[in-house]
Amino acid sequence: MLRFEIQATCPHTGARAGILHTAHGDIETPVFMPVGTQAAVKGLLPRDLLNDLDAKIILGNTYHLYLRPGHETIRRLGGLHKFMNWPRAILTDSGGFQVFSLSGLRKISEEGVMFHSHLNGDPHMFTPESTIDVQLALGSDIMMVLDECLEYPATHEAASASMQRTVRWARAAYAHYRTHGDDGQRACFPIVQGSMYPDLRQECAEQLLELNADGYAIGGLSVGEPRALSLEMTELTTPLLPKDRPRYVMGVGMPEELPEYVARGVDMMDCVLPSRNARNGYLFTSFGRVVIKQAQYKDDARPVDETCKCYTCQNFSRAYLRHLFLAGEMTFSTLATLHNLRRYLDIMQEIRQAILFGQVPEYLKAVRDKQLDVPG
Amino acid sequence: MLRFEIQATCPHTGARAGILHTAHGDIETPVFMPVGTQAAVKGLLPRDLLNDLDAKIILGNTYHLYLRPGHETIRRLGGLHKFMNWPRAILTDSGGFQVFSLSGLRKISEEGVMFHSHLNGDPHMFTPESTIDVQLALGSDIMMVLDECLEYPATHEAASASMQRTVRWARAAYAHYRTHGDDGQRACFPIVQGSMYPDLRQECAEQLLELNADGYAIGGLSVGEPRALSLEMTELTTPLLPKDRPRYVMGVGMPEELPEYVARGVDMMDCVLPSRNARNGYLFTSFGRVVIKQAQYKDDARPVDETCKCYTCQNFSRAYLRHLFLAGEMTFSTLATLHNLRRYLDIMQEIRQAILFGQVPEYLKAVRDKQLDVPG
Repeated sequence: MLRFEIQATCPHTGARAGILHTAHGDIETPVFMPVGTQAAVKGLLPRDLLNDLDAKIILGNTYHLYLRPGHETIRRLGGLHKFMNWPRAILTDSGGFQVFSLSGLRKISEEGVMFHSHLNGDPHMFTPESTIDVQLALGSDIMMVLDECLEYPATHEAASASMQRTVRWARAAYAHYRTHGDDGQRACFPIVQGSMYPDLRQECAEQLLELNADGYAIGGLSVGEPRALSLEMTELTTPLLPKDRPRYVMGVGMPEELPEYVARGVDMMDCVLPSRNARNGYLFTSFGRVVIKQAQYKDDARPVDETCKCYTCQNFSRAYLRHLFLAGEMTFSTLATLHNLRRYLDIMQEIRQAILFGQVPEYLKAVRDKQLDVPG
Repeated sequence: MLRFEIQATCPHTGARAGILHTAHGDIETPVFMPVGTQAAVKGLLPRDLLNDLDAKIILGNTYHLYLRPGHETIRRLGGLHKFMNWPRAILTDSGGFQVFSLSGLRKISEEGVMFHSHLNGDPHMFTPESTIDVQLALGSDIMMVLDECLEYPATHEAASASMQRTVRWARAAYAHYRTHGDDGQRACFPIVQGSMYPDLRQECAEQLLELNADGYAIGGLSVGEPRALSLEMTELTTPLLPKDRPRYVMGVGMPEELPEYVARGVDMMDCVLPSRNARNGYLFTSFGRVVIKQAQYKDDARPVDETCKCYTCQNFSRAYLRHLFLAGEMTFSTLATLHNLRRYLDIMQEIRQAILFGQVPEYLKAVRDKQLDVPG
């Protein structure tokens, strides 16, 4: 099990600051993890992630890497860290979310899920055990169990059945992990499901606690539900999870939501929003969102955010970024991604400092007050 | 006029090594200039060009920047150097080549060339004087005069008429430059045309010599003629040009051709080949071309070129690059461009060293012998 050290907890909220010790370095929490689906954070080089962002952990995607280039290829080449030249920690999801997004292309059974590759239609099977094996081949520091990720809305009956299967799969995956992969150098997290039903979330969490897992994730959020509901599900789930283990909310959220999740006891988050928005010309700043294609930036010599220390803001104007975006230059995606990811990591640093210095309520108030001023 | 200092000349060939002193730094010649058409070298950041490639000069494109974002916008923002955050030298072409590529969309008169924007069809006019004004707004260190760039093949009659117009335009552009832009901080190069006719090339060069220009370019090559013919035209033109001025062959060539041009007395070159080939998965190495998508590289843990010192070769395997290419990851383009441009700049460094140490014939022999071993 990876050692998780809690350095400070907020007496007024659920927020905590800590350090997750991995074989590939220490990770200060709360942490936002940039997404590197196909063994690359889109538009960035590993040195950008190290030198510009000082990212301590990134995500890889089991589904994508299993299909291409194949986990056995990556194993032969020394594992995912070596393959992509990333010396720090890697978390891989189980592929469950991606497989369940392939509606029409997949079939669920008690054994696992049969699906067809989005690349060439070939049939494949993921089982709780096989997804652990794939992640062991990748050499992830933190693996995730295979879960069933339900669409929203779902009936209580469907959500209950799905949640029960997720629990059975988690038990199978965890048994496999304990016997094949639990070498003290890595971790495996089960995932709390239960759609938007508090009783199911509670039942799921209680059953997963029996695994005495290295950490726990909250999944099945950001699947179309109102944002308030995602936060509500998080708020009721985190108190059910062990205080001394890291908690990871998967696939959320907008910049202003990060502190809200942390205040509800979340230690780890990931999301494609900062990088995808960057490529689409939406830049997150300390004063709201900048839509860089707008004509108002045509002659604007100011950086995107004058308070930002990223390479992009230190060196380029809004006018230049707008030009690159309109010209379709790849360089735009790189500069925009550098900025947006820096913004996310800076926010996490801010709230971490607030926790360490006992200022969480004040920080939350400042963030919430600012929301009132800025149109979405 | 920019000062051009010749450090060594080869007694056996036309090759020379020198330093071109500009307001934005010294440029060791022979030099290959990376192409940054739209105020960005595709896929790279300025810091990559500085730190990885140590590029001393890059190209910008007058046609593209005139249309978008507009030279007046760039002027208002402090010029092209500041706009794109490039502290070293910039050469801008005149836009002639691009305009003449717009067949059907342009109409030539004695005054200049009327054309329609490829972006939105709007009509525009380039005159010899206006393209100088645009380049003055951009703040280029080296400007090019407007020339007529003929397709290949062309009749002697058409080539002669076109060459004569190019000379008249060069005189008009140069007169405008002398009165409006010749502040000793920048340079302006006329362009020798004449299609593939030695007598026309000679006549053109002789007439342009009367301008006593800062440097001379050889244009109208790489327009579909056999490669041997491009070299032949260069070989007969360079001896006609002043020994003490830099000579620039525009838009050529393949890696193995660079030393051939230098041996014929060329000091400056540019080409989109290294960057465009990079994005298409063709990597230039010391042992020939690597087509990275090939299945033979699937599990290949070796770098693209074991002798190469670039970031890509120092950190990533062929297998990883192949994966990124097949996955369509932007990061591939960045890594491949870093490598191919480094290869071009390394070749130029090699031949420069050969000139300085009096080893040009030996170097040329080694390059030519190697060609025999490697299939194109």
